[in-house]
Amino acid sequence: MAEDNSIFVGAKPFMNYVTGVVMQFTTKGADTVTVKARGKFISRAVDVAEVAAKRFLEGAVEPRGININSEEFTNKEGKQVRVSTIEIALSRKDAS
Amino acid sequence: MAEDNSIFVGAKPFMNYVTGVVMQFTTKGADTVTVKARGKFISRAVDVAEVAAKRFLEGAVEPRGININSEEFTNKEGKQVRVSTIEIALSRKDAS
Repeated sequence: MAEDNSIFVGAKPFMNYVTGVVMQFTTKGADTVTVKARGKFISRAVDVAEVAAKRFLEGAVEPRGININSEEFTNKEGKQVRVSTIEIALSRKDAS
Repeated sequence: MAEDNSIFVGAKPFMNYVTGVVMQFTTKGADTVTVKARGKFISRAVDVAEVAAKRFLEGAVEPRGININSEEFTNKEGKQVRVSTIEIALSRKDAS
């Protein structure tokens, strides 16, 4: 894997992220694009990955590895909180 | 894999799902528990899996395979919509 391009999903308009993923594959010729998110944006990251792979790049790209994790930290109120994270690696089907 | 126990995450109190996962491992002796969700509950499913694996079953259980998918259907207003899904398989580390 020569390239590792990431898209971090947050509160911007949904299609910004989808376009970002698609462009990495089509314009930049990436073999793998990793869609990342934290907390409540995890659902959105899955939507972005699915729409990019199934609607815009259908047949050419697939999820090749999905990792979840979580980070524990102390927030402003001194309370210990855990936030989950996800990383979805989308790869060209013809890439090894 | 002899057992395939699923927990479907929705709008009930968060700890219900965590307890459900933990009980499958501890009381029912499951080797693998699959945490599933659709749409906006995907973030929650990741939280459930992380809290169960890292806080309650620390060291004994890990995510062994995560799949995302999506279903396209026509809603009540006749509009075509896509809903994403996730399945997170948690397995005992000592299970093969």
